Amino acid sequence: MTDFSPDCIAALKRVSTATITTQLFKRGLRNCYIQGVRPLGAYGENMVGPAFTLRNIPSREDIDVMSVFANPAHPQRWAVENAPAGKVLVVDCRGDARAASGGEILATRLMVRGAAGMVSDGGVRDAAAIAKLPIPVFCSGPSAPLNLAVHHAVDVDVPIACGGVPVYPGDMIVGDGDGVVVIPAHLAEEVARDAAEQEVLETFLLTRIQGGARLPDTYPPNAETRAAYAEWLKNRG
Amino acid sequence: MTDFSPDCIAALKRVSTATITTQLFKRGLRNCYIQGVRPLGAYGENMVGPAFTLRNIPSREDIDVMSVFANPAHPQRWAVENAPAGKVLVVDCRGDARAASGGEILATRLMVRGAAGMVSDGGVRDAAAIAKLPIPVFCSGPSAPLNLAVHHAVDVDVPIACGGVPVYPGDMIVGDGDGVVVIPAHLAEEVARDAAEQEVLETFLLTRIQGGARLPDTYPPNAETRAAYAEWLKNRG
Amino acid sequence: MTDFSPDCIAALKRVSTATITTQLFKRGLRNCYIQGVRPLGAYGENMVGPAFTLRNIPSREDIDVMSVFANPAHPQRWAVENAPAGKVLVVDCRGDARAASGGEILATRLMVRGAAGMVSDGGVRDAAAIAKLPIPVFCSGPSAPLNLAVHHAVDVDVPIACGGVPVYPGDMIVGDGDGVVVIPAHLAEEVARDAAEQEVLETFLLTRIQGGARLPDTYPPNAETRAAYAEWLKNRG
Amino acid sequence: MTDFSPDCIAALKRVSTATITTQLFKRGLRNCYIQGVRPLGAYGENMVGPAFTLRNIPSREDIDVMSVFANPAHPQRWAVENAPAGKVLVVDCRGDARAASGGEILATRLMVRGAAGMVSDGGVRDAAAIAKLPIPVFCSGPSAPLNLAVHHAVDVDVPIACGGVPVYPGDMIVGDGDGVVVIPAHLAEEVARDAAEQEVLETFLLTRIQGGARLPDTYPPNAETRAAYAEWLKNRG
Amino acid sequence: MTDFSPDCIAALKRVSTATITTQLFKRGLRNCYIQGVRPLGAYGENMVGPAFTLRNIPSREDIDVMSVFANPAHPQRWAVENAPAGKVLVVDCRGDARAASGGEILATRLMVRGAAGMVSDGGVRDAAAIAKLPIPVFCSGPSAPLNLAVHHAVDVDVPIACGGVPVYPGDMIVGDGDGVVVIPAHLAEEVARDAAEQEVLETFLLTRIQGGARLPDTYPPNAETRAAYAEWLKNRG
Amino acid sequence: MTDFSPDCIAALKRVSTATITTQLFKRGLRNCYIQGVRPLGAYGENMVGPAFTLRNIPSREDIDVMSVFANPAHPQRWAVENAPAGKVLVVDCRGDARAASGGEILATRLMVRGAAGMVSDGGVRDAAAIAKLPIPVFCSGPSAPLNLAVHHAVDVDVPIACGGVPVYPGDMIVGDGDGVVVIPAHLAEEVARDAAEQEVLETFLLTRIQGGARLPDTYPPNAETRAAYAEWLKNRG
Repeated sequence: MTDFSPDCIAALKRVSTATITTQLFKRGLRNCYIQGVRPLGAYGENMVGPAFTLRNIPSREDIDVMSVFANPAHPQRWAVENAPAGKVLVVDCRGDARAASGGEILATRLMVRGAAGMVSDGGVRDAAAIAKLPIPVFCSGPSAPLNLAVHHAVDVDVPIACGGVPVYPGDMIVGDGDGVVVIPAHLAEEVARDAAEQEVLETFLLTRIQGGARLPDTYPPNAETRAAYAEWLKNRG
Repeated sequence: MTDFSPDCIAALKRVSTATITTQLFKRGLRNCYIQGVRPLGAYGENMVGPAFTLRNIPSREDIDVMSVFANPAHPQRWAVENAPAGKVLVVDCRGDARAASGGEILATRLMVRGAAGMVSDGGVRDAAAIAKLPIPVFCSGPSAPLNLAVHHAVDVDVPIACGGVPVYPGDMIVGDGDGVVVIPAHLAEEVARDAAEQEVLETFLLTRIQGGARLPDTYPPNAETRAAYAEWLKNRG
Repeated sequence: MTDFSPDCIAALKRVSTATITTQLFKRGLRNCYIQGVRPLGAYGENMVGPAFTLRNIPSREDIDVMSVFANPAHPQRWAVENAPAGKVLVVDCRGDARAASGGEILATRLMVRGAAGMVSDGGVRDAAAIAKLPIPVFCSGPSAPLNLAVHHAVDVDVPIACGGVPVYPGDMIVGDGDGVVVIPAHLAEEVARDAAEQEVLETFLLTRIQGGARLPDTYPPNAETRAAYAEWLKNRG
Repeated sequence: MTDFSPDCIAALKRVSTATITTQLFKRGLRNCYIQGVRPLGAYGENMVGPAFTLRNIPSREDIDVMSVFANPAHPQRWAVENAPAGKVLVVDCRGDARAASGGEILATRLMVRGAAGMVSDGGVRDAAAIAKLPIPVFCSGPSAPLNLAVHHAVDVDVPIACGGVPVYPGDMIVGDGDGVVVIPAHLAEEVARDAAEQEVLETFLLTRIQGGARLPDTYPPNAETRAAYAEWLKNRG
Repeated sequence: MTDFSPDCIAALKRVSTATITTQLFKRGLRNCYIQGVRPLGAYGENMVGPAFTLRNIPSREDIDVMSVFANPAHPQRWAVENAPAGKVLVVDCRGDARAASGGEILATRLMVRGAAGMVSDGGVRDAAAIAKLPIPVFCSGPSAPLNLAVHHAVDVDVPIACGGVPVYPGDMIVGDGDGVVVIPAHLAEEVARDAAEQEVLETFLLTRIQGGARLPDTYPPNAETRAAYAEWLKNRG
Repeated sequence: MTDFSPDCIAALKRVSTATITTQLFKRGLRNCYIQGVRPLGAYGENMVGPAFTLRNIPSREDIDVMSVFANPAHPQRWAVENAPAGKVLVVDCRGDARAASGGEILATRLMVRGAAGMVSDGGVRDAAAIAKLPIPVFCSGPSAPLNLAVHHAVDVDVPIACGGVPVYPGDMIVGDGDGVVVIPAHLAEEVARDAAEQEVLETFLLTRIQGGARLPDTYPPNAETRAAYAEWLKNRG
């Protein structure tokens, strides 16, 4: 379904967005975390998938009326109906949460079609119902008004802004309890691998800290701690 | 207790605020959703009732002192003591959440007196305790400081602003998990009726979508889907 | 561990931050509530302890790089490693939640070392994991990016701003479901005592209100209610 | 025209708003400066006059239409037509500058009727033309849209909020290049007198500073500087 | 050069943006004023021209580097080099003024090529120099950093958001001292005509108000005032 | 007076802050422009000098009273009295413009003592008078209230935040019509030199653009344009 390896996807399902931001920071990328979005529900594992995008501009009273939805090419509806399975629909609402990016019916359709999730820097309506669906949805919070009150869907699968971050179609999107991070497509494989490694190390370090180790020598690890880690890794098999 | 029919009240207890905003949008009203307020607790059904309002302006150090509460005519206390049963107390805090609009004792008194709920675009103190009361309370979030630190209650049952929306005394207020919507009084009956109808249709459409139907032809429904809906309605009885 | 009496600490563990802001308001202090922070978890009792502070300024790309953590004197790490047991680490992030003040390993180390809690007007990463720790953590919400993306830790235990409030080292910090309040050190003892008294009275008044008493005569209490309170206190023993 | 003495008015025309805020601060009032408003033009002397107020709430599409102005009782028009000569029209726009509080025709009518000025925490249209009128107008800046797009005028001469400050009808309003300050009516006489005194002293101190005096001993003045000031006052006659 | 009549352009050069917003309001359009932008200089007449747009998303450290400008197809440079004479370049910066949309060299090139002006909801660098050029430039204010620090130019002549308003390529843009208004292309001719008429009437009404006429009967005009206006128009020739 | 060469100072007096941000961007520094500050007056040349800093935290009612100024060690007064000649006083007000960082007397003292200027991300009172002084002052705008209403001066010459940017004592501060930029001390010499060179080139390029040259080949210059520039430089002497 995508150009990313199964190992990459699998790794990104387990590592935290915190770890991913550290890996991106090491590569000079400081602005990769979508500001201001939260998961609507409690999801068992990370949301992971390449970005499929939808762009909104402000609505205008004379053209953004109920009848626009009769047109199956309306970009909001078209995006939901055509988001490829395994991808994450990322919606640019200019950070404006005064109206919804979508509601239960659209989220259900996304789910049925196999989308990996949805992210919007605007609001979502029917939030309580959507929170119970297995498809992960991240947004700035519940917002009842329909999209047309504030938004005009205009483009599908173009580069967008979401929560202050650039999102290019195909960028890898990962979401967990801390929020959503955007990994530029060409970095996804190496970031996934290095993030997985970082987390194994940090699991070990956390055990040490839980056992009373001091931060100095442990976090970051000095040579002695690194040696103990190597040993621990070996025993762990 | 109010001028609204029992059918209107009953319908509004079941329909979502999302659906209501759609009905108001169809009537040309795009700004009816109180921005930035959330329910403090998880309530079984919608909060529904006509608005009874309280207006605050910024407090002033020399006149907003503890002793003002000794006066039973102090507007905050008077509003709570005189909010008619069945009504929703809507409080204008200018969107300023740095202090509380009220706390557990006032919320309890509102509840004992039979108020239908409370909405404030400011904060609420004792939020954890209030969240457990059966009376629905919507606000911008917990805020410990007493109202006098920021607010001076000045008027009762006048037109106010709340969360960027005009609220006139007697407007119908409805709250659910998505937040709070204000229905102009003269539209409440027809909006309640049409919203109830819309939700029956959407329940049907959602079933279809859950069953794999495509958005085009279904949402919005084409002639064929409408026919199936008519059939479904008949069978449903 | 501190200069405050066990009675003071004990009282502050039980009273609400709402009550404390009222006591401070009576003493002329209107700005003592840290705006915009919430508890990450549900804690059984109040967070209480004197402030131990950490100050951040904005980071700069050339000096805020991963290798800074190799230095055990890095102020963020040093602050965590040296926060005295029983104290609350209060972090000045200039209200900027675009990055984390810390994550699970640092929170765990604080906990192991016996800190009373942590407050930051920035974000916290690994928020879901930290929410399950017994150490209370208050912040503006989850935020995945590491601190270096936005913050440069610069000073420890100096006067800071946090959530719009001045915090001096040694000020008493109290946190509950409504958020966090700062009590100037020299007022902590008397505020604790008066707040405890206020809460006993309010417990009585709440019972009355629950029983149907009117606000006038009850809240605030008139002479008759005060007499009933005195009686109730006596019977209560 | 008002209850204030000619001396009070005359003094307030000369002293700065900076000095007035200092006098109010000394009396325990820290929040008396209307935040975010600027003079549209360059006025030769201070704007001074008691407040005559206008309150707006958000507009609603169905009732805020052009035809409302046919009614001479429309509060915006009524306020302009009835603002007493010598008073300052203070307009509560909830700090929302997306539309205008008024334009050239209304400002001209205010001027012809002898109003002392106008303050709005919203915008003003025809700003370039109004800037050339001799009547002082303070606002958050130019804003072309007519008031009805955002505002519904609802009340005249009630207590309002303006720029985060409470304004009661009859409070003394003073505006200069730094902005606008609100003096509670009962304090206007004494503040005017003490502010005038303060400014004489500061004129002297400024001369000293211009001459090379050190801040210590001069600002604030020590006994020696106070003696020199007394001498200077005497010589000045 | 455009599809608009010379009469339309000529009328829009004379009428105010305030009047245009009133005409659009009468047609149901309440959101047509670009919020937060100001002219950098003092221009003799209105800026008028159809929109030619440029869209930015947030920049990314690895791809937004100085060398991108070597490519003549870079959208920012391409937009300036290809903006048709007579058109207004409207730039979507997501309202982010932390960096510049352009500077003196680009503004000069726009001017030499005959563009009618430029509008950006971001900043502009070299603002003092640009303010002296005859080409009108409207923006949120001076901002020194180069665009790459915050913006990635991505699209030319697509629908955009600017200052909270939708802007479609070819919409008529008008700017004066109050700011910038966007007229949907299909309404430009009639709005220009009606706005010109409205201004003649208001010129007459203003004269009346200057002469002491009351608002009632004058603004809006009653039958008598309208008759006097007809007479005045006749005499005026 | 400082560690910087006279050439460095001289160059920085002539180059624009726009050019300096470009030079810093080339060195990986994207956040060096103090957001939200403007010059109060029109100054003939750039403000240039190393930073001498003052840090404020929020004020507290019980300790921030008029009498604090009697103490010559009060950090605000001490900073003004001790700012070395040739340095720029940079004041951290947490971006809070609700009160003044200082007024005419302090600005005059700074001027008399030979300070190179003042920058504050808060307000300044007596703004009209200060605008006429020859000492350059940059701030977020006029604000009448005295500093104690909002600020508590706490530290002198420590690293601070100002307008979202880190400022270390001794960093080179440059201000012009576009605002203020902070050059890390160790980069000031090379940035000054390269900025001066960049401006000579851009002066040439601007002449070309004024003469009708196309952006491609000119900005940035291709080999041919660079050759013409070399020639021009030679002829220029």
